[in-house]
Amino acid sequence: MKNWLQENNWEEVKELIKKSKGVAIIPVGSTEQHGLHLPVGTDTYIAITLAEDAALKTNALIVPPLWFGWSPHHMVLPGTITIRPEILSEYLFDIVKSLSVHGIKKFLLINGHRIVNVIWMQLTAEKAQRELDVEIKIFDPAYMSKDIVKELGFGPVGHAEEIESSHMLYRYENLVQIDKAADNPIEEKELYSVDPSYSHDTLCYVPTSVKSARKNAEKAGGVTGEPTKSSRDKGKIYHEHLVKNLVKVINQLQNS
Amino acid sequence: MKNWLQENNWEEVKELIKKSKGVAIIPVGSTEQHGLHLPVGTDTYIAITLAEDAALKTNALIVPPLWFGWSPHHMVLPGTITIRPEILSEYLFDIVKSLSVHGIKKFLLINGHRIVNVIWMQLTAEKAQRELDVEIKIFDPAYMSKDIVKELGFGPVGHAEEIESSHMLYRYENLVQIDKAADNPIEEKELYSVDPSYSHDTLCYVPTSVKSARKNAEKAGGVTGEPTKSSRDKGKIYHEHLVKNLVKVINQLQNS
Amino acid sequence: MKNWLQENNWEEVKELIKKSKGVAIIPVGSTEQHGLHLPVGTDTYIAITLAEDAALKTNALIVPPLWFGWSPHHMVLPGTITIRPEILSEYLFDIVKSLSVHGIKKFLLINGHRIVNVIWMQLTAEKAQRELDVEIKIFDPAYMSKDIVKELGFGPVGHAEEIESSHMLYRYENLVQIDKAADNPIEEKELYSVDPSYSHDTLCYVPTSVKSARKNAEKAGGVTGEPTKSSRDKGKIYHEHLVKNLVKVINQLQNS
Amino acid sequence: MKNWLQENNWEEVKELIKKSKGVAIIPVGSTEQHGLHLPVGTDTYIAITLAEDAALKTNALIVPPLWFGWSPHHMVLPGTITIRPEILSEYLFDIVKSLSVHGIKKFLLINGHRIVNVIWMQLTAEKAQRELDVEIKIFDPAYMSKDIVKELGFGPVGHAEEIESSHMLYRYENLVQIDKAADNPIEEKELYSVDPSYSHDTLCYVPTSVKSARKNAEKAGGVTGEPTKSSRDKGKIYHEHLVKNLVKVINQLQNS
Amino acid sequence: MKNWLQENNWEEVKELIKKSKGVAIIPVGSTEQHGLHLPVGTDTYIAITLAEDAALKTNALIVPPLWFGWSPHHMVLPGTITIRPEILSEYLFDIVKSLSVHGIKKFLLINGHRIVNVIWMQLTAEKAQRELDVEIKIFDPAYMSKDIVKELGFGPVGHAEEIESSHMLYRYENLVQIDKAADNPIEEKELYSVDPSYSHDTLCYVPTSVKSARKNAEKAGGVTGEPTKSSRDKGKIYHEHLVKNLVKVINQLQNS
Amino acid sequence: MKNWLQENNWEEVKELIKKSKGVAIIPVGSTEQHGLHLPVGTDTYIAITLAEDAALKTNALIVPPLWFGWSPHHMVLPGTITIRPEILSEYLFDIVKSLSVHGIKKFLLINGHRIVNVIWMQLTAEKAQRELDVEIKIFDPAYMSKDIVKELGFGPVGHAEEIESSHMLYRYENLVQIDKAADNPIEEKELYSVDPSYSHDTLCYVPTSVKSARKNAEKAGGVTGEPTKSSRDKGKIYHEHLVKNLVKVINQLQNS
Repeated sequence: MKNWLQENNWEEVKELIKKSKGVAIIPVGSTEQHGLHLPVGTDTYIAITLAEDAALKTNALIVPPLWFGWSPHHMVLPGTITIRPEILSEYLFDIVKSLSVHGIKKFLLINGHRIVNVIWMQLTAEKAQRELDVEIKIFDPAYMSKDIVKELGFGPVGHAEEIESSHMLYRYENLVQIDKAADNPIEEKELYSVDPSYSHDTLCYVPTSVKSARKNAEKAGGVTGEPTKSSRDKGKIYHEHLVKNLVKVINQLQNS
Repeated sequence: MKNWLQENNWEEVKELIKKSKGVAIIPVGSTEQHGLHLPVGTDTYIAITLAEDAALKTNALIVPPLWFGWSPHHMVLPGTITIRPEILSEYLFDIVKSLSVHGIKKFLLINGHRIVNVIWMQLTAEKAQRELDVEIKIFDPAYMSKDIVKELGFGPVGHAEEIESSHMLYRYENLVQIDKAADNPIEEKELYSVDPSYSHDTLCYVPTSVKSARKNAEKAGGVTGEPTKSSRDKGKIYHEHLVKNLVKVINQLQNS
Repeated sequence: MKNWLQENNWEEVKELIKKSKGVAIIPVGSTEQHGLHLPVGTDTYIAITLAEDAALKTNALIVPPLWFGWSPHHMVLPGTITIRPEILSEYLFDIVKSLSVHGIKKFLLINGHRIVNVIWMQLTAEKAQRELDVEIKIFDPAYMSKDIVKELGFGPVGHAEEIESSHMLYRYENLVQIDKAADNPIEEKELYSVDPSYSHDTLCYVPTSVKSARKNAEKAGGVTGEPTKSSRDKGKIYHEHLVKNLVKVINQLQNS
Repeated sequence: MKNWLQENNWEEVKELIKKSKGVAIIPVGSTEQHGLHLPVGTDTYIAITLAEDAALKTNALIVPPLWFGWSPHHMVLPGTITIRPEILSEYLFDIVKSLSVHGIKKFLLINGHRIVNVIWMQLTAEKAQRELDVEIKIFDPAYMSKDIVKELGFGPVGHAEEIESSHMLYRYENLVQIDKAADNPIEEKELYSVDPSYSHDTLCYVPTSVKSARKNAEKAGGVTGEPTKSSRDKGKIYHEHLVKNLVKVINQLQNS
Repeated sequence: MKNWLQENNWEEVKELIKKSKGVAIIPVGSTEQHGLHLPVGTDTYIAITLAEDAALKTNALIVPPLWFGWSPHHMVLPGTITIRPEILSEYLFDIVKSLSVHGIKKFLLINGHRIVNVIWMQLTAEKAQRELDVEIKIFDPAYMSKDIVKELGFGPVGHAEEIESSHMLYRYENLVQIDKAADNPIEEKELYSVDPSYSHDTLCYVPTSVKSARKNAEKAGGVTGEPTKSSRDKGKIYHEHLVKNLVKVINQLQNS
Repeated sequence: MKNWLQENNWEEVKELIKKSKGVAIIPVGSTEQHGLHLPVGTDTYIAITLAEDAALKTNALIVPPLWFGWSPHHMVLPGTITIRPEILSEYLFDIVKSLSVHGIKKFLLINGHRIVNVIWMQLTAEKAQRELDVEIKIFDPAYMSKDIVKELGFGPVGHAEEIESSHMLYRYENLVQIDKAADNPIEEKELYSVDPSYSHDTLCYVPTSVKSARKNAEKAGGVTGEPTKSSRDKGKIYHEHLVKNLVKVINQLQNS
């Protein structure tokens, strides 16, 4: 798919930049445990498929994906790779800086590693906006599906839960082993929730401690939430909702 | 007030740690423009008063306040001081590390500089939990007043708006010049809101660019929101709501 | 292809580690101009195809590819992305560190961005060997094809030259536009050569200055060498030579 | 007191900068053990009171205090907080840089944590003078009381000794428990003294090792010197001497 | 010898820069074990003598030597000092930057610590060329003696082997105790060689692991190679070959 | 001279460490303008000659000299090289760390670049004492000649003044061109002096700003002080005073 930067030679890149109206999508994911039913690349796959579908409808350029994120709390299970957030932030900064030299001044960062990566991406975004005179938006499915999630009957944002699993079922069915899914229902805690759509008072998100992560790993293979409630059809609605929002944001950038 | 670490000699500190059941509050603020009606120290004053009232009811120890935060977007108006987030994060880490040597293993960070400081504090919190075997909670008034703000008739979280101004009127009336307050009503934007209680789809928060900040400065002296709607009485209810939540969280920590 | 880490769930990763005898391949590339006939992702594609073919024959695990490298000298043409080498080195270090936690202690780094990436990868490799007690080998096609290149009638290592172009023709024909290839023959300079098979006295490699890079860009669209002499058949022999060497090195690691 | 930056809104800050003739005082202290008779905040309290009295006489602006310093050698007793000097230096640099954006180009740093903080403050001062085109003076009571200390019958500079204790008695009597003071007389060592007024050959100051610090802690609760010889009246003379010098230096800056 | 920067006053330095046609030599060595027959300063002595002889014939200026290099793999034997490569690179960068302020824009780095130091020197060279608009060449005896080494009957590049020992015998006979030399012949390994003149396929150089270093230390006192085959006469030919090349490179720089 | 580490092979180093009773001297200097009559290497020469004479009388081991220091304020004249203090501090730390691995636990740092280098050396010394369990003393001629300087009729510490010039005349007469010396008498300023023997109230030392440095350069070729009053005989007394003190300190270390 020729929206991907890597497939083009530099002359084609020049064209692509024009056609994209100067907007680049950077898909950012993670490689980390996602329970027994989802592949460790889940977060990056999700960022990739969102990027592709949005690019098709907007001509935006897509930068090769960032496969690794900040995942210290998932290191208790194999396959997880975690990079220090200060390194990730500088790494992404250099990508944005390089592209800004070539005339790309508007960026949409898609974060497949919901909530956690947002933290270091905010640091990059602010620094890049100030130092490089670019415009950066951060798109996170957890923040961009508030309007649809309850409607679909999904529970709160967890990890490898019914939301993510339904999404994967719709887009990467062959990578999902839904029969292996184990549930770990999310109980409401007083004054704490990871979910950005939580409407009550809450402390701020801090990645789980190793102790808690270990408990989760033992309980349900690293799942938080109820993946057995997943549905390919709901995944489709969820995906299309996100793509619709993506297109809106990219159009805003293209016309600003 | 003897809950403040700085007022005690080291023998008294030892006692204080015992009495606090090993819980320290760290008030984190900022020094930045807050419109024409609020002092530049507003965010720190708010963290301080919350810390004091919560400490009184829980015997928690209070660490001297951090007067400076991450405020690059307010540098367009005088009096603003901004520290790089990576420096703030290391600075706070060393405070936590030092106290953990003395046996304090539970921390409540109160962020007076709503939303913005949360970003770098999350980095510190995760690193400290993992490396120092401590427990850290981040308390931000914007996240901890979702249950009350609409009830009080306040608009969304902005800057130096009616929420913050009412709070300051209640606790530091002599530092407020409410007659100088100028309004800059917050219009709803599609797919963007700074307010954590916003219930619709949204991009993630990135500190305002310099260009936007300059516009705000010109429009209403740096205000976003409607401070003329402030009320000391509402400030009292708001404050007590936050203190009640603080006490809950501290008690949870003390009993964990 | 299930040798790729990202496609497996964590339980499968555990199996994969066993089957691989604890050897992981990390494909490292770049995204940079490669003349008018090759895509900017060339170096990463090459690392990927080598990794896949070697993994098939050895059961080694493959880590998701690193799409970005150190390319300051190619920034004169669009599509090039360059990351500071100290950031790349720390980034790769964290990948190795994470995997070593999961029991992988032997690494083969394949560098598609010949010669240039080797520099920072050596820093990572030494530090990781010393601090993490792992074993790391760096495989670079330019160093691993000395025995075959002259035989094939190829000129010296340049950039987007007949070697790289033949390789791409064999493995990714649809991404190559060989009719657009422009030549920029490499003249022998006294006491300088980039090519590791150069048998005479030479200064050490330093990435080209911006001034030189600009000249190359103007001359032949960023090419150094003679891509018009490319041949898919020679690319096949070259590729198989490299894969044979890869298999040998991986087997050495698996049996050490 | 309206010389404190934090109490003013940004319009008042503008006025304050004018009135101060562009001179800001930054009080820098520490939070560290000060024996059984002085609070752990002693060094910061001293910087604060000096700043306030000097500001009153010169209209200088005062920046919120830095409560934490470099105190690795006092970590053996509870209540001590130590920040790495490289972090402190960058932190202070950002404060100076922010204020220089608002037109403040002259700085007086008051160091309440005598001698020790001077080291990292010198790094900040040099860097800021060179990079930001500002003028910075470092005021340390130990260096600024050479002309008076012997006259007052005080022994050499130690820690929580009669000098510091007299000063605290004069300015913060309610925070001093002079009856708990224990003495640890300073013996003259060959070729070593911490005191800048020492007139003989000496090695340079290096913060005490942990071993020595532990000994001091056991001997006299962390005191070096003879606090039982403290006197509120001497404290007054000492304080006024320092303030007189401060006013001179600030006037020099204002008229340069 | 007045080509050494340090021996001149600043007025003479000005003259020296003119006479040198703006070319400075920086001799970079190491302090590390060199078997039982060579002093730990060997690598720096070699850089020094090459610098001096080349400067005599070209009027190039010589910067004081860098006595310490990157030697983690030799720490198993006493006398070895190793500096982190990122520190060495910044250190050398500041030297180049300082001299560029004084009008020196062309640099020849002589690396006495063959192969190993090249890695971090490449980082410095690229950064300096790009940021400071200077021209930098890296001269390493192992790369600059390919044309002569086989002719002289020397084996491959090792450590403290016959090449280095012959060179030392010729230039610093009084520092060599050739009777203590122990041999550790280099066996050809499949697909690995440290020697840049190796004409077959090879993995890239990574400094030896601690385990291997320990074995070498036990076998032959840290030697790799056959120093008993050393010859002062061959050392002379080798030295003169290197000096001839140095002069060529310096002349190129002076006339570019 | 076999006290120099670099001249010994590793077996001899082992002996040397024993004979030295585990004490190493590290001579630290600078390469910077020293007026028209002294070479730019002056500070390092002085550290070297002190190290050698003290080592002869104590058997201490000497580490190769550090030729570069922190000299930002002398960059206005050619020949000056300045390294960032944070880099110098890490560089020296690695030297100390390496030697501590080989059993050297006591260090005497001789600073030829009086006063200025002390700042970053203090950071290294504290960190090394705490992290590496070593003992470090910093010896600076300006602090170690208080007892003799007035007696010799010398004025205050400046730069390239009669003290330094007399010392160089005694030890390196052939590098001094005393007839070129120009005077720049040091006027007493209120509340400021660089000289550690100054007995009145003073601000703390901060390296001169570029503006002041430029003035000094124009006035007397970079001199501060009165080098025309130099005397080889006084230089001898001064040198012997310093060596006597060095021997005392080293003996203390050896017997501790």
